[in-house]
Amino acid sequence: MAYKEKCGVFGVYNVEKAAHTTYYGMVGLQHRGQEGAGLVSCNQSEFRLHRGHGLVTDVFTPDDVDSLGGINAIGHTRYSTAGGKTQLEGFQPFCVHYRMGNLALAHNGNLSNATELRAFFENQGVLTQSTVDSELFLHLISHSKRSSQIDQIFDAMTQAEGAFSVIILTDRFFCAVRDPNGFRPLCIGRLKGRGRDGTDGYCVASETCALDLCKAEYVRDVEPGEMIIIDKKTVQTGTFSSLKLPQKFGTSQCIFEYVYFARPDSRVFGEFVTKVRRELGRQLAREWPVPKVEEGELLPVIIPIPESATHATLGYHEESVKMGRPCIFDFGFFRNPYVGRSFISPSQELRDLKVLCKFNPMEHTLKDRIVVVVDDSIVRGTTARQLVKLLYAAGAKQVHVRISSPPVTDPCFYGMDFPSKEELFANKYQGDIEAMAAWLQVDSLGYLTPEGLVEAATRSSGTRHSFCRACFTGVYPVPIEPTGRRDSSLDW
Amino acid sequence: MAYKEKCGVFGVYNVEKAAHTTYYGMVGLQHRGQEGAGLVSCNQSEFRLHRGHGLVTDVFTPDDVDSLGGINAIGHTRYSTAGGKTQLEGFQPFCVHYRMGNLALAHNGNLSNATELRAFFENQGVLTQSTVDSELFLHLISHSKRSSQIDQIFDAMTQAEGAFSVIILTDRFFCAVRDPNGFRPLCIGRLKGRGRDGTDGYCVASETCALDLCKAEYVRDVEPGEMIIIDKKTVQTGTFSSLKLPQKFGTSQCIFEYVYFARPDSRVFGEFVTKVRRELGRQLAREWPVPKVEEGELLPVIIPIPESATHATLGYHEESVKMGRPCIFDFGFFRNPYVGRSFISPSQELRDLKVLCKFNPMEHTLKDRIVVVVDDSIVRGTTARQLVKLLYAAGAKQVHVRISSPPVTDPCFYGMDFPSKEELFANKYQGDIEAMAAWLQVDSLGYLTPEGLVEAATRSSGTRHSFCRACFTGVYPVPIEPTGRRDSSLDW
Amino acid sequence: MAYKEKCGVFGVYNVEKAAHTTYYGMVGLQHRGQEGAGLVSCNQSEFRLHRGHGLVTDVFTPDDVDSLGGINAIGHTRYSTAGGKTQLEGFQPFCVHYRMGNLALAHNGNLSNATELRAFFENQGVLTQSTVDSELFLHLISHSKRSSQIDQIFDAMTQAEGAFSVIILTDRFFCAVRDPNGFRPLCIGRLKGRGRDGTDGYCVASETCALDLCKAEYVRDVEPGEMIIIDKKTVQTGTFSSLKLPQKFGTSQCIFEYVYFARPDSRVFGEFVTKVRRELGRQLAREWPVPKVEEGELLPVIIPIPESATHATLGYHEESVKMGRPCIFDFGFFRNPYVGRSFISPSQELRDLKVLCKFNPMEHTLKDRIVVVVDDSIVRGTTARQLVKLLYAAGAKQVHVRISSPPVTDPCFYGMDFPSKEELFANKYQGDIEAMAAWLQVDSLGYLTPEGLVEAATRSSGTRHSFCRACFTGVYPVPIEPTGRRDSSLDW
Amino acid sequence: MAYKEKCGVFGVYNVEKAAHTTYYGMVGLQHRGQEGAGLVSCNQSEFRLHRGHGLVTDVFTPDDVDSLGGINAIGHTRYSTAGGKTQLEGFQPFCVHYRMGNLALAHNGNLSNATELRAFFENQGVLTQSTVDSELFLHLISHSKRSSQIDQIFDAMTQAEGAFSVIILTDRFFCAVRDPNGFRPLCIGRLKGRGRDGTDGYCVASETCALDLCKAEYVRDVEPGEMIIIDKKTVQTGTFSSLKLPQKFGTSQCIFEYVYFARPDSRVFGEFVTKVRRELGRQLAREWPVPKVEEGELLPVIIPIPESATHATLGYHEESVKMGRPCIFDFGFFRNPYVGRSFISPSQELRDLKVLCKFNPMEHTLKDRIVVVVDDSIVRGTTARQLVKLLYAAGAKQVHVRISSPPVTDPCFYGMDFPSKEELFANKYQGDIEAMAAWLQVDSLGYLTPEGLVEAATRSSGTRHSFCRACFTGVYPVPIEPTGRRDSSLDW
Repeated sequence: MAYKEKCGVFGVYNVEKAAHTTYYGMVGLQHRGQEGAGLVSCNQSEFRLHRGHGLVTDVFTPDDVDSLGGINAIGHTRYSTAGGKTQLEGFQPFCVHYRMGNLALAHNGNLSNATELRAFFENQGVLTQSTVDSELFLHLISHSKRSSQIDQIFDAMTQAEGAFSVIILTDRFFCAVRDPNGFRPLCIGRLKGRGRDGTDGYCVASETCALDLCKAEYVRDVEPGEMIIIDKKTVQTGTFSSLKLPQKFGTSQCIFEYVYFARPDSRVFGEFVTKVRRELGRQLAREWPVPKVEEGELLPVIIPIPESATHATLGYHEESVKMGRPCIFDFGFFRNPYVGRSFISPSQELRDLKVLCKFNPMEHTLKDRIVVVVDDSIVRGTTARQLVKLLYAAGAKQVHVRISSPPVTDPCFYGMDFPSKEELFANKYQGDIEAMAAWLQVDSLGYLTPEGLVEAATRSSGTRHSFCRACFTGVYPVPIEPTGRRDSSLDW
Repeated sequence: MAYKEKCGVFGVYNVEKAAHTTYYGMVGLQHRGQEGAGLVSCNQSEFRLHRGHGLVTDVFTPDDVDSLGGINAIGHTRYSTAGGKTQLEGFQPFCVHYRMGNLALAHNGNLSNATELRAFFENQGVLTQSTVDSELFLHLISHSKRSSQIDQIFDAMTQAEGAFSVIILTDRFFCAVRDPNGFRPLCIGRLKGRGRDGTDGYCVASETCALDLCKAEYVRDVEPGEMIIIDKKTVQTGTFSSLKLPQKFGTSQCIFEYVYFARPDSRVFGEFVTKVRRELGRQLAREWPVPKVEEGELLPVIIPIPESATHATLGYHEESVKMGRPCIFDFGFFRNPYVGRSFISPSQELRDLKVLCKFNPMEHTLKDRIVVVVDDSIVRGTTARQLVKLLYAAGAKQVHVRISSPPVTDPCFYGMDFPSKEELFANKYQGDIEAMAAWLQVDSLGYLTPEGLVEAATRSSGTRHSFCRACFTGVYPVPIEPTGRRDSSLDW
Repeated sequence: MAYKEKCGVFGVYNVEKAAHTTYYGMVGLQHRGQEGAGLVSCNQSEFRLHRGHGLVTDVFTPDDVDSLGGINAIGHTRYSTAGGKTQLEGFQPFCVHYRMGNLALAHNGNLSNATELRAFFENQGVLTQSTVDSELFLHLISHSKRSSQIDQIFDAMTQAEGAFSVIILTDRFFCAVRDPNGFRPLCIGRLKGRGRDGTDGYCVASETCALDLCKAEYVRDVEPGEMIIIDKKTVQTGTFSSLKLPQKFGTSQCIFEYVYFARPDSRVFGEFVTKVRRELGRQLAREWPVPKVEEGELLPVIIPIPESATHATLGYHEESVKMGRPCIFDFGFFRNPYVGRSFISPSQELRDLKVLCKFNPMEHTLKDRIVVVVDDSIVRGTTARQLVKLLYAAGAKQVHVRISSPPVTDPCFYGMDFPSKEELFANKYQGDIEAMAAWLQVDSLGYLTPEGLVEAATRSSGTRHSFCRACFTGVYPVPIEPTGRRDSSLDW
Repeated sequence: MAYKEKCGVFGVYNVEKAAHTTYYGMVGLQHRGQEGAGLVSCNQSEFRLHRGHGLVTDVFTPDDVDSLGGINAIGHTRYSTAGGKTQLEGFQPFCVHYRMGNLALAHNGNLSNATELRAFFENQGVLTQSTVDSELFLHLISHSKRSSQIDQIFDAMTQAEGAFSVIILTDRFFCAVRDPNGFRPLCIGRLKGRGRDGTDGYCVASETCALDLCKAEYVRDVEPGEMIIIDKKTVQTGTFSSLKLPQKFGTSQCIFEYVYFARPDSRVFGEFVTKVRRELGRQLAREWPVPKVEEGELLPVIIPIPESATHATLGYHEESVKMGRPCIFDFGFFRNPYVGRSFISPSQELRDLKVLCKFNPMEHTLKDRIVVVVDDSIVRGTTARQLVKLLYAAGAKQVHVRISSPPVTDPCFYGMDFPSKEELFANKYQGDIEAMAAWLQVDSLGYLTPEGLVEAATRSSGTRHSFCRACFTGVYPVPIEPTGRRDSSLDW
């Protein structure tokens, strides 16, 4: 399924041609946001900002990247919305000036005390330029009474609540912070000998795939509640916790990064994403096996919804064979890589056409077969239903849907862009799987159990993590503001 | 001569299709700024901003103007710089949100206590987004302790020093302010029956020509030190003065608006610009008459540097004839209207080509003649020298330069974009007119005297004005901050 | 008045940086066509073409001009149409390949035997790409049975009928041709020492102002019926006449070039345009003098419709004073140079707004005055009527219109873009000047007589010319095809 | 591997909203050409053309498609070149006018007698606008002496030699033609009840996937040497053969369409592409099996070069397991869908970066494994070598390369864009597989045998086809012109 998440962040410190390196890093994080991109480079004490709508490769021409230059830089990819163009004012990185000098910031996540903070600052006479939570960090820092800039940032982080993986660039240092719950990922890389005079440079990114693309070596994750300061001479690290919020639940890293968000070639929360996804598929096969076929019948074909469900499907297939349920792994849809944002909205009489242009069913693979189609999740259910229809039209005998995560029943307030609770497919049917299968018009529908999900994710990634599963359970590890919260998010 | 001034401002209140009307008003103020344009419209409580680089007609497509819509709006045209593209962040109108709601603002002028104010706010933890003085008004307003929004604005205006003609739009009212010295012009128009339910609408503009283009009737100028508030029910007015600065010199309206800035079809400071310009030309003829010619010689030809000097030239010619010095008025240069920003910089071997492409001398008019060329002013002298060269190349027998204002010896800190003192032609030669004429390679050079200028301007406009003449005298009516001042201006 | 003419042509041969020089030449011919521009450069045997919609300065970036390079080049500016965008396929120069090699061609004018030629070629199996007459030259050349390329071109020219000033570039030489009647202008310039190894380069242009801008020295006009061939070693010239058409009327150069088309700083048909225009104004004053004013009344003010009527107005004023009718020359309209193609079409309730935004009347000049407004011609009459209305609204006591040419009663088939006969103002009223004045709502209306026009043009330009005056007389010096002719022209 | 093929063609006849339908069809043929796209629609007798650089979804805005409208239309996607922008003049469809009326044409293929035809026409006085073979069809048609338009087209087709799948639209009918050898595919679809008054519409496309996207039902292929004429009343069909060329070899359909070109969800030459590709993979496994592993060693992993080799890899894996060589199918590279044309060329010190950004190896899958990587073909070998390097860097223990086609030793002259013979990897090493493996630095390299290829393709597609295998054998079914041939192709 196609979710929308808010942003990827990337930054480099002490790296020759910092803007170029950041460009490649952002290309690696493009899947975390396609609405727009921004980059702030630092050349001595001059900060240069370039932002624009669209893909990284469209926003930045070679001339742009050359003229950004720099030895330090931070970048941000912004998630995609269906509606009209958002004004550039709300695009990150933010780059402002305050009494200590320049301050550039990129943020992935959502603050859960944003309304409260915004009200506080407005009463102080503060002007705001956007409805983006991330702007609040800037005010928290500039209004801190501490005298050192590091302390000001530390001060700010203890007052922020919710999900935040943040990269900051000042005139003096580079800083990476992850909230105490560690909702969103953030990792550190080293660029050996790529800094001034052959020193090592550093980079920080939402996912390790961005490190790969700039040939940085993965060092480790920024830990939940950790703040790392890198300057010309030292790398310092410290931990912080929320001023008001007791850390009741331990960490709560977003399990949906494993299910759907992260790029399969990334290591997230310290573990390879493909490894976890394959395991989710295996677990799913154990919970919801391939239907048995009769003697002489064609073997069932196991197909993914491309691309996100591919690895879970491979695991599902592998486990199925191991379980003595012979079946074939194949691709049942051709996904047209050229169908993107600028595809013309089909006219009324040709509706469903965008789905068809994007996912054309492969008759040869499907005809007369029992088809088990694996997806990572279902949000609204409308696309799923269209795809099922296409499978039958292509000659499928039966269609069985398998989902490698539990039903999504509740919205995310920590940085993932789900629709409202009312629009969520699983919520509409209150978990009545039979009814859901009926609406989708499938022969069977199977979701991974919450226990199975956590167990599989823990099994493949070791035991040191605790995950946020709020979207499956409605239990939110950090309290959500009662009102206005979603509105502010919708303003984005 | 081509000066660069900072901006034209325009606003409408209670006018159907406010964005359309503002578009036409801005087209009328295009001569005050060609680098960019911006427009904020207000639709009920929603403020929409559109800004861009280039001419008004390029920045706004019909779709843009339609979607801006609105019943109230303010617009801004931004002056042109030679260098690279300025980031849109510094483009006006500014549109922010603070505890009282939305706040949109457009400003023409320069604050002379900007450095002090900026330092003050930075110490308060304020973030700044640009190096534009105009942003400071927003902080002055949002940090005011007064409870009513009108009082907050009033409060802000008493703390600002220097040149400011400001238009403000809030959720509740529309406001126009002119600084106590009245440096820059600002006038009020009425749009009879063009508001909701047939009520009258209002507009405010830098110059009356913008009123003409939206078919508004000229009411009067906003007075120096006046603040006008228009809301749904009432038009209120009040006067204010600077908190710190005693009003020593009376008003000090920019006399350069008459000399060069304003469009000839405007009424500025209450008087028709052409009327004043013709009078400046007449005075110039009295001070620096046409050379006498011998019996049988061809009559001298009096030509303007198009377009700005045309009316002064007409006055010069008229007075010359009246004084018994027969001569011909003609155009000695063809000015190519198609040579603008995008003209390709000529290569080395074709230098002077841009001047030639823009101003082609007319051989037939000039050949074997004594040529008296009238301009409004000389800034650096380089273009003047090239034009003189072209006149000789076209066959002029003698070239006499007449300037309808005194030598520009000092920079302007009140909103006019002169180069630094060092670059000013008249300053380089310390007023040695002979030396200046020699460098320009002309047969004679005559400037209007400062007394002649004021006398002529006063004569044609009545006696109620006192003018700022700092650029000719170095006497600044409002004190200038000692340091950093020009730097901040250069950052623009 | 604003007419639309078809095109300016420019070419250079043996000039370093030929594309740059052509760019400047085209900027000088921009007034002859603003819809689009094209340039073909020749680099050794490689021909490069770049065409686009809009102004020369918009169509060509510095990179474009650099990459065009070349030692020879030809350019074309295309006239402006009101309607939708024309497809680039119809834009000149045309650049094709045939058995003799490359062939690039730019043409100003209209062929009167186009329909016949087109039919002939189609029967031969020829494909056509546009409905532009100019394409026919290419087929005439490539289908010629002659063996030498020069002879092929010569052959082509003898078969073309109508108005054509043509520039051709081949792999071997450069060629300039003017039709035997010499309808449209074409002149030759020399660029001393600007060619390879310090040799002289040459250029050919529609008007001499283009020569000025590339610092070429005016040599002479291409004569009617002359074909000039320039190659690496020689400049050859020859004369040709139409195969079928006896040259009954001598030459018939377009007198409208003097009245309106040509840039005032150009020399056309060998004479300075301003000189002729001033004389037209003088003649007009003699035929239609300024109204007498009574003792004590304000002097009448004589104003031009800017910019085209300025020089005729100066002549009118000069002669009036000489005739003992004292009056003042002034500008009654401010013409906004920023109102161009991209100006937004005003909404219904703001109609007439484009005229107002473009021509704002100057109240100070007009109020309580008798106004004599001089224009070069009237086509449809609608704009004239709006302008008269604006003059009265600005306080004019009387408005007298004076036109420095006779009534335009008939369309042009030789390269000028008039509307159809039915739409012509003078044709509608069958020359009833009283009725025309009434419709315009003016106090008087005076046109120059045809005799006065020719007399004045001849007087100022010597006696060697005979002119085409078909638009005033309906007498066409070259026969017009009975049908389809205008249609093909409208297809443009 | 990434080859470049020349073009996809699509056309519809008698379909409401023809331009919309053609847009969707072209989106489905985007993989056959990304450099540009063009569409000609026919509205009664008006033909409208729109062409542009880039992807279909970028070239056409909704407004463009709406204004094209039409009831008939043809479209063309143009292949991508590495170099600078090609001029639009060479983009198809071509749309011209000749004595019979309008003629629009789109062509996929290459004429092998192009030089001869071009010379013939040039001697007739024909002008050419491009160096594209396809233009020659237009001249062949318009120079035909036959009187009926259908006969003219028939006449033209008998004179063309080489590879051509052509779609033609005239004022009266729609026509689809495939050369007698049937090099390139072309198929017919029916749009039931989607024409005027509920009649059936028709479409023709390079591949069936385009039919799917416009919900057309696949009827059959256009047969080699078949010409189909569809008009308002009838569908006619006829066969033709080359005037000069005896049909020695039967048909010679391009086997590379199965190997690489065609979209996997298409049916080409009547057979499903995936079916053939899986079979090629199976055959490859039999010829070049997975290396045996020792007891206790990790199972080998079989990975495709995404996306083109995926189905062959599935077949290879399936057969390997069946053969008793247990192994795992997985993805060893993540292919970034956002890395396309506008990706910035990496600087010198970051070379190989584009390959890395596009194909990031997945460490988890590869580490310590024997890796068998399957690709469809190798052209130059440079990318293959870089990918191998990445596999080792990610920890692969051994790398074995398997290619699902024979070595490419000879260029294609029938519409496929290979580099010159000298640049072909297999040609350089004269088929010395050992040497090739050494250069690639792999543990083993295995190519499918030519016999295996044909056998597998024939097995899966039935026995009715004979294929062109010139690129593997150097035996060209239609003679190639001795000289100039490749040059003209390079001019494209």
